[in-house]
Amino acid sequence: MKNRQVVLVSRPSGVAQAENFALRESELGPLPDGQIRVRNAFLSVEPAMRGWIADKGNYAAPVEIGATMRALAVGEIVESRHADYRVGETVTGWFGWQEMAAIAPAAIVRRVRETDLPLSLALGVLGINGVTALIGLDLIGEPKSGDTVLVSTAAGAVGSAVGQIARIRGCRTVGIAGGAGKVATCLEAFGYDEAIDYRAEGLGEAIAAACPKGVNVYFDNTSGVVSDAVYPRLAVGARVVVCGTASISSWDPWPTGPRIERYLLVKRARAQGFVVMDYMDRWEASVATLADWVRAGRLRYAEDVLEGLEACPDALAGLYRGENKGKRVIRLVA
Amino acid sequence: MKNRQVVLVSRPSGVAQAENFALRESELGPLPDGQIRVRNAFLSVEPAMRGWIADKGNYAAPVEIGATMRALAVGEIVESRHADYRVGETVTGWFGWQEMAAIAPAAIVRRVRETDLPLSLALGVLGINGVTALIGLDLIGEPKSGDTVLVSTAAGAVGSAVGQIARIRGCRTVGIAGGAGKVATCLEAFGYDEAIDYRAEGLGEAIAAACPKGVNVYFDNTSGVVSDAVYPRLAVGARVVVCGTASISSWDPWPTGPRIERYLLVKRARAQGFVVMDYMDRWEASVATLADWVRAGRLRYAEDVLEGLEACPDALAGLYRGENKGKRVIRLVA
Repeated sequence: MKNRQVVLVSRPSGVAQAENFALRESELGPLPDGQIRVRNAFLSVEPAMRGWIADKGNYAAPVEIGATMRALAVGEIVESRHADYRVGETVTGWFGWQEMAAIAPAAIVRRVRETDLPLSLALGVLGINGVTALIGLDLIGEPKSGDTVLVSTAAGAVGSAVGQIARIRGCRTVGIAGGAGKVATCLEAFGYDEAIDYRAEGLGEAIAAACPKGVNVYFDNTSGVVSDAVYPRLAVGARVVVCGTASISSWDPWPTGPRIERYLLVKRARAQGFVVMDYMDRWEASVATLADWVRAGRLRYAEDVLEGLEACPDALAGLYRGENKGKRVIRLVA
Repeated sequence: MKNRQVVLVSRPSGVAQAENFALRESELGPLPDGQIRVRNAFLSVEPAMRGWIADKGNYAAPVEIGATMRALAVGEIVESRHADYRVGETVTGWFGWQEMAAIAPAAIVRRVRETDLPLSLALGVLGINGVTALIGLDLIGEPKSGDTVLVSTAAGAVGSAVGQIARIRGCRTVGIAGGAGKVATCLEAFGYDEAIDYRAEGLGEAIAAACPKGVNVYFDNTSGVVSDAVYPRLAVGARVVVCGTASISSWDPWPTGPRIERYLLVKRARAQGFVVMDYMDRWEASVATLADWVRAGRLRYAEDVLEGLEACPDALAGLYRGENKGKRVIRLVA
């Protein structure tokens, strides 16, 4: 029996392109004792993958050249040589961009218990994106009722959840997104009080107009020109959740921007980096909360589904081209 | 009876120079009911004054043109029309760059109780500088025993206290200062484990060598090239206390520097602005702690005493020229 995988064949300096990956076919060997074999149903594509394959210091060891691309996935256990896992269970975890994954239990993030909801949600609003939004907003952003919460990549997989959770927390929400279509999605699908197109003229003035009392929480997925326009408009005591740097295409050479120390000082504001993998102990409870909100219609989501392993190599570059509308996943099993 | 004052006559764009101030003589009027008259013994000079007279947004209303320069001072009550204050008491507070101050009780920060210690310390190690160091380090920096604490302007009035308090907290301390003389002062007078001259070649490498496990707490009084060399060397979970921006001579045009979001993200680090005036409720207890350390010889200080009101106009510019060795104060009463 064969397995097919997407492997990293070269290390990009900026955003990975299709040519940095290759499809490879291999024989499925016997499953070692203590391991579990998962047939992946959906594979995840996320902006953070850029960091996982960069040769710069990062919060995770880099994927090695020739190795299967690191990825979250969700699928069914088809073979088990571990007493705690049974064939037929649905699990999500670090199974990689491949059809079949032979993994140790440590690679499993959780069993998927929300069998009433679509399986792919385990990679998005009930997975890393939703959990990132919930924990990042609550623990780092510390939203208070009445706060103005500003979100960059506001229509994206993380941002759309942040905006909706901030509303649930009693905040006024302002989204920043690229283009009229995403701005409309922010307002119509995700319930932002206001939405701003960062590609239009006068971004700073638009933020000031949408946030007349200043920005209490800035959930930053982008860095770059969007952040440059936000920092001067922080309110006293503001919290910035530094969650991603999607707008920076390369850190070599290291980009410059307006110094933010003076904004932090004058506004007694805080900017703090957030990596959700530091909070695995809160994952299960977070997913339960998110699932309740999805069932109650309080937390909406959008998905961007590509078909088949062949879609993987270009899928990450496509994210950075801004072509996806919602959480991008790859469907392997119908 | 006459009073003499130093007034702001023009608003500088960068650091205030002597010509931005003028000495003025005025008649002492009768003291209004409810007020207190203080004869200033020592006036304070501090880097933060630059912000108080800037026309940019800041954490305090700007000093108006023609007004007496805002300053902390310490002196004796010579006349009182307020039931809570008696002639002969020593007080410190916002009395301005002048010989005699007629003030409301709100301008008084505290009564000086440490009569066994030099009066001028109320403006330095037992005043805003020491309190800034203690509260900023403990509350924003959150030092843990064994942490490496890096301090910029390490020989200065705030920095020298931060370094010594960090040692009291069980930390390894590394100071950054300008020039061989201040580096020697860091090591010999203030007990830093290591000290680095930022004017020498290879600042980044020197920081890396002095902080082999990375920087857990960076107490930042400077911004600029020193910070640019520190951020890449933060440890995971680092805390940056953004306390001052002494190395930036002007914010118009706004200076640029390497973007710090990626460092914050990868290291899950936090940068937070700190203004000690937000913590007035902790002032009295902080001074008591600092005074105990001074008496026990655990907290040393250096002073740079100028003589007479005539020294005021150029005193602030002199701070930014780096000419002072220790806390700069102006002595009015011998």
